[in-house]
Amino acid sequence: AQQSGATMDRTLVTYEIAQDVAILTLNRPEKRNALSDHVIDDLESGIAQAQGEARAIVICGNGDHFSAGLDLAEHAARTPIEGVHHSRHWHGVFDKLEQSAVPAFAALHGAVVGGGLELAAACHVRVADETTFFALPEGTRGIFVGGGGSVRAGRLMGVARMTDMMLTGRSVDARQGEAWNLCQYVVPAGEARAKALELASKAAQNAPMSNYAIINALPRINDMGRGDGFFVESFVSAMTATSPEAEARLRAFLEKRAAKVARPE
Amino acid sequence: AQQSGATMDRTLVTYEIAQDVAILTLNRPEKRNALSDHVIDDLESGIAQAQGEARAIVICGNGDHFSAGLDLAEHAARTPIEGVHHSRHWHGVFDKLEQSAVPAFAALHGAVVGGGLELAAACHVRVADETTFFALPEGTRGIFVGGGGSVRAGRLMGVARMTDMMLTGRSVDARQGEAWNLCQYVVPAGEARAKALELASKAAQNAPMSNYAIINALPRINDMGRGDGFFVESFVSAMTATSPEAEARLRAFLEKRAAKVARPE
Amino acid sequence: AQQSGATMDRTLVTYEIAQDVAILTLNRPEKRNALSDHVIDDLESGIAQAQGEARAIVICGNGDHFSAGLDLAEHAARTPIEGVHHSRHWHGVFDKLEQSAVPAFAALHGAVVGGGLELAAACHVRVADETTFFALPEGTRGIFVGGGGSVRAGRLMGVARMTDMMLTGRSVDARQGEAWNLCQYVVPAGEARAKALELASKAAQNAPMSNYAIINALPRINDMGRGDGFFVESFVSAMTATSPEAEARLRAFLEKRAAKVARPE
Amino acid sequence: AQQSGATMDRTLVTYEIAQDVAILTLNRPEKRNALSDHVIDDLESGIAQAQGEARAIVICGNGDHFSAGLDLAEHAARTPIEGVHHSRHWHGVFDKLEQSAVPAFAALHGAVVGGGLELAAACHVRVADETTFFALPEGTRGIFVGGGGSVRAGRLMGVARMTDMMLTGRSVDARQGEAWNLCQYVVPAGEARAKALELASKAAQNAPMSNYAIINALPRINDMGRGDGFFVESFVSAMTATSPEAEARLRAFLEKRAAKVARPE
Amino acid sequence: AQQSGATMDRTLVTYEIAQDVAILTLNRPEKRNALSDHVIDDLESGIAQAQGEARAIVICGNGDHFSAGLDLAEHAARTPIEGVHHSRHWHGVFDKLEQSAVPAFAALHGAVVGGGLELAAACHVRVADETTFFALPEGTRGIFVGGGGSVRAGRLMGVARMTDMMLTGRSVDARQGEAWNLCQYVVPAGEARAKALELASKAAQNAPMSNYAIINALPRINDMGRGDGFFVESFVSAMTATSPEAEARLRAFLEKRAAKVARPE
Amino acid sequence: AQQSGATMDRTLVTYEIAQDVAILTLNRPEKRNALSDHVIDDLESGIAQAQGEARAIVICGNGDHFSAGLDLAEHAARTPIEGVHHSRHWHGVFDKLEQSAVPAFAALHGAVVGGGLELAAACHVRVADETTFFALPEGTRGIFVGGGGSVRAGRLMGVARMTDMMLTGRSVDARQGEAWNLCQYVVPAGEARAKALELASKAAQNAPMSNYAIINALPRINDMGRGDGFFVESFVSAMTATSPEAEARLRAFLEKRAAKVARPE
Repeated sequence: AQQSGATMDRTLVTYEIAQDVAILTLNRPEKRNALSDHVIDDLESGIAQAQGEARAIVICGNGDHFSAGLDLAEHAARTPIEGVHHSRHWHGVFDKLEQSAVPAFAALHGAVVGGGLELAAACHVRVADETTFFALPEGTRGIFVGGGGSVRAGRLMGVARMTDMMLTGRSVDARQGEAWNLCQYVVPAGEARAKALELASKAAQNAPMSNYAIINALPRINDMGRGDGFFVESFVSAMTATSPEAEARLRAFLEKRAAKVARPE
Repeated sequence: AQQSGATMDRTLVTYEIAQDVAILTLNRPEKRNALSDHVIDDLESGIAQAQGEARAIVICGNGDHFSAGLDLAEHAARTPIEGVHHSRHWHGVFDKLEQSAVPAFAALHGAVVGGGLELAAACHVRVADETTFFALPEGTRGIFVGGGGSVRAGRLMGVARMTDMMLTGRSVDARQGEAWNLCQYVVPAGEARAKALELASKAAQNAPMSNYAIINALPRINDMGRGDGFFVESFVSAMTATSPEAEARLRAFLEKRAAKVARPE
Repeated sequence: AQQSGATMDRTLVTYEIAQDVAILTLNRPEKRNALSDHVIDDLESGIAQAQGEARAIVICGNGDHFSAGLDLAEHAARTPIEGVHHSRHWHGVFDKLEQSAVPAFAALHGAVVGGGLELAAACHVRVADETTFFALPEGTRGIFVGGGGSVRAGRLMGVARMTDMMLTGRSVDARQGEAWNLCQYVVPAGEARAKALELASKAAQNAPMSNYAIINALPRINDMGRGDGFFVESFVSAMTATSPEAEARLRAFLEKRAAKVARPE
Repeated sequence: AQQSGATMDRTLVTYEIAQDVAILTLNRPEKRNALSDHVIDDLESGIAQAQGEARAIVICGNGDHFSAGLDLAEHAARTPIEGVHHSRHWHGVFDKLEQSAVPAFAALHGAVVGGGLELAAACHVRVADETTFFALPEGTRGIFVGGGGSVRAGRLMGVARMTDMMLTGRSVDARQGEAWNLCQYVVPAGEARAKALELASKAAQNAPMSNYAIINALPRINDMGRGDGFFVESFVSAMTATSPEAEARLRAFLEKRAAKVARPE
Repeated sequence: AQQSGATMDRTLVTYEIAQDVAILTLNRPEKRNALSDHVIDDLESGIAQAQGEARAIVICGNGDHFSAGLDLAEHAARTPIEGVHHSRHWHGVFDKLEQSAVPAFAALHGAVVGGGLELAAACHVRVADETTFFALPEGTRGIFVGGGGSVRAGRLMGVARMTDMMLTGRSVDARQGEAWNLCQYVVPAGEARAKALELASKAAQNAPMSNYAIINALPRINDMGRGDGFFVESFVSAMTATSPEAEARLRAFLEKRAAKVARPE
Repeated sequence: AQQSGATMDRTLVTYEIAQDVAILTLNRPEKRNALSDHVIDDLESGIAQAQGEARAIVICGNGDHFSAGLDLAEHAARTPIEGVHHSRHWHGVFDKLEQSAVPAFAALHGAVVGGGLELAAACHVRVADETTFFALPEGTRGIFVGGGGSVRAGRLMGVARMTDMMLTGRSVDARQGEAWNLCQYVVPAGEARAKALELASKAAQNAPMSNYAIINALPRINDMGRGDGFFVESFVSAMTATSPEAEARLRAFLEKRAAKVARPE
């Protein structure tokens, strides 16, 4: 798939592919990458395209910020039912990212605020550089999250911390964000994209079925009763273990051709 | 509402209101603010009164401790069914706090132990000063939590940490408590009440419907299946977004009359 | 029960009992305590024996590592349904540990990897020394966890961190593991077993019914809806509180014969 | 307690007590017992009074109908948040009925429509005479149920049947209602109240703790995961079995002083 | 949209629209309307088109049968992961039907078997004529349902009845199907389509927001904990009640311009 | 396996095997097959033995009744925690039946009461003859169900009907029991065993993996959120579909060597 999706020209979300990793870059730096409906549309096509030709996704932002969230300038007067449909549409797009066949890595810097945090939370791994800060100003604006944040960000940091952020408008920096499980890595300023790309490239070498199972089964099993989770695990485990790819990898391991687990550096 | 609820005279739980914030103070310092049934009754009336006239609540304790928990001196011999009803009564009072129309901020210091931790866990935000320590001695006393702790404290810190505290009687200090999500803020000794009041005053300025939605919807959405949570979010989001207050706040923001999200200090 | 179960001779898992604590030691140091089916069988008998004669369990490992996980050399070609039954068998054994009548303490050092982490996660409290590292290499081997890890480890550290570990093969050291709730204690190298034993001895002195309720009710209440959890708590609380042992302990407390809750050191 | 609560004078809901059974009668026959806020208030006090002095409750209606539902004449223009609070208030009252310490029996005839069906669904047993018909016209009125019907009626008849009733305005007669689990008994016209009273009197002779456990534990256990339900059952079962009342009843049975289970007539 | 969707020419699923109702007709009578991937694709476009221009949907089948299920002739050899993706694709299409903005009515006759029953179960109301029979032969074919039947058909009839059908291959006729909640109406042979159309036309006159809430909120509320369901109901109820359409309909009712609830015929 | 397990001599539960079906017969006719702990032990060994050598199980009773339930003569005075363990032991045995690798068919006649109904509810299909009646007298005896009935019987008939049975001691005959989903078949007096055997023999010819999936996955999927259920179905479906047995059966079907789905007689 060498030329097919490479560096397409999109105004709001650029798309490039390198070594099996699709890189989607939010590209409205002058608006702090505010998420308009057009940005969401472009994200949707980028995610769809990546399914066909990439084995991992990186999402990052141009300029000084990952994303300052919902483009409030676009906040048209809507009837309540229109508001429901608008929120449901965002859910649909972010669901395609979260339930993707391939894992997604968010590279964060600067503002990761409101809808920006909701987008980051729909990725599977989050790498933040030291300039990153997280906030959910919806509470102080008189509104509520509508892009899945109450589900995804709430499950990441827990209800109490999210309540605090929404009630008080509190900002949280990268280190605090790591302690609160809002990101899994903190790197020096400017290095988030490179680190995310490195992790994505590594994950891209896993068996596709393992990756599919990891990103899709783990959150579901966490939502089930324990007994049901064990049952499901046994099916996912048995199905991956009997795939030809697993056989090959296990053989490589037994023949000492595969790396052992290393101590953390 | 200047004079109506201001500084009422209550023996066990004092009630005062300042700038839309109701302050409930546990007032049995000589008993380390142990929670007797009379204290629970006073808490109940204070919470009810705050619904009518305040936009936020602060709960704190007089003396050296927030609360050392259930007043064991009162632990009458009960039949099992009486024990069930007693526990259910506490649940009812703490539920009124947690499902309140207005957010509650706990200001913690000294012992936050047993029922004291259960009370703190029913508030939405917890501010601890550096003298604070948390413990659940019920396990070593041969009993079990009965004021909602297995639900609320378990959801805050996770089952494994709570199991450890109950099995071994372990005490946890303020810093550890923050890492374990038992409190969201740690401040110098003696400053918890002021910080809680500051946060409560800030939250009191939010739109009441936003506050109601934040404190009521977030924990429920966290307990639902993901798909159901998204659906509910879309209704809460659409309803808050179409309120006149949200319109006014968004206009203020677009006209640059509202504060932007700031980096954390 | 002084001589009955003391220091039995088992090849793969040694069993000894001291002061009401059963100590199960994984004993394949040359294989980094890899978990073969025979190890699982020995664990099962050790757990069963402990129910009858001990009031707490410690699980630890001989050699340089707690356990490097599933013995891949044993990974026979299985049909999918055989794979399901194999996984279900492990679930059954680890369930007996987790739903035990007496609490289990894991003493960790070196590799706590794959199935080794799944075993540790089925214990109630985890003590790690500073040499400990955690990893889930299943993702990079093309397989999936099958010993309950998707349920138990996922609930400990949260889905996002586990996803990261499985997608990227990341290793996590003891301190990070504590922050991620993979262990509740970190001690100097070589001291995990002693600390686990100290904690187990302490817990062994609790009322058996309290211990049973703590380790069995807390995880279940955490999985229920909040309202249901409160209801269940009221029954567990009432039943423990009316036991003769609770009465005796409360009397001791009121008569100042029992220790007060102490501040953390 | 012979005279204490007997035949109090209430305009909208009459209250009388006979042989330990409190009878609450909706008393707005000229309005087809439409449920206004005042009716709800009177129901609330009747339910509260019954807790103290009765061992079972019967709810029935004067005139030609049980209740035609929400009093639409009272449907004031409300803001959305006022609508939320109004609905929550009804939920609170009906919850006190459903989570009562004593079982409630609904005697149904004529229209059991909208809020009338929601009230009936909050009782534990429903007896319908042959004139009874059930309907949920909310869908065709452009609104939605707000008195708990989506939870309680949905759990009784299943989602598909309730969807049909709400989409099409379909009416369901007593026989069909029995098949759909909307009532558990169908009796000849005019006999519902007598049958409900007979059943209530019978249940009033059970041990109070058994009744409490039956009406409170069964719906909760049904909402839990299976494994959790079994665990809870074991506590409820053990606690009831060790009560003095159970001992006496079991002895009576063993000594053949208690009735055996009889074949259905 | 006068000409756009009217009677389009599709080979496998014909589409016509009449009085705001879109009628999708399975059109492979010679194959007993077996569901091939092409049929699923055509269903998907029909459902999508109906969202834009219809207020209700009817799904029926040409020939002697509604649908005999999965086209086994198409059952290509797939790897397990391809099988997962194939099943997930069907889920996606049927989800669009079930979570549609407008209600769907299935008109059933003859065989409603396997995938045919899964399709019918994704509609909101099912009308069967007397020739209808239901079966799930997957069990006897050595496979399992894969089009959502384990979720949707299981929730309709309950697990025990579905287990029986799958273990024994049992066929169930229309009357039994009605008792088992597989259909809500039974009509004489040949009249299912007309009855479904009549019901769909009636529902098409409801307020769109009511219909949306009924078909989307009821199944979700049924899956939540009771307390969460009540909370959600209050939001859905408040939002529908404050819509202009609801106001108009309530006014019509109060001014006696709207039909009262009628007794069933 | 013709002779291995055939017609073993057990006093309380006889075991015989015929055509791959293990038949377990409760054999205390003089005690109306009351369930003592010894009966439970014998059931446990019978179920275990059947796993190894049978492809289906039938459970029936000698004498005039299937089982009148718990042997109250054995109801020793137990402490609450002993009561918990006793109930948990029954749960364990009945779980082995319900989560068996092979399906279980109950043949019912006469009294199916209390623990007898709990045992029947742990089977997958229930065949009742016309003499059958169901009752749950626990409520009137001052106790509660303890053999899993609150979970299994509640899920079969729904909470409201079970509440009625327990509050009023109501007996339900075979026809009513079928309508309430307590049994799936009603046959003439004396024919339940033969019918159960016929159904079991039929199911015994299914692919073992299909049977395993049907009886284990369906109840779990029913307990999960809808989205999670669909996901799990896709794995179960893909794994069964790629088994050699499924391939052979589908080929037989396509080559018209397998029976088509027949209309119900």
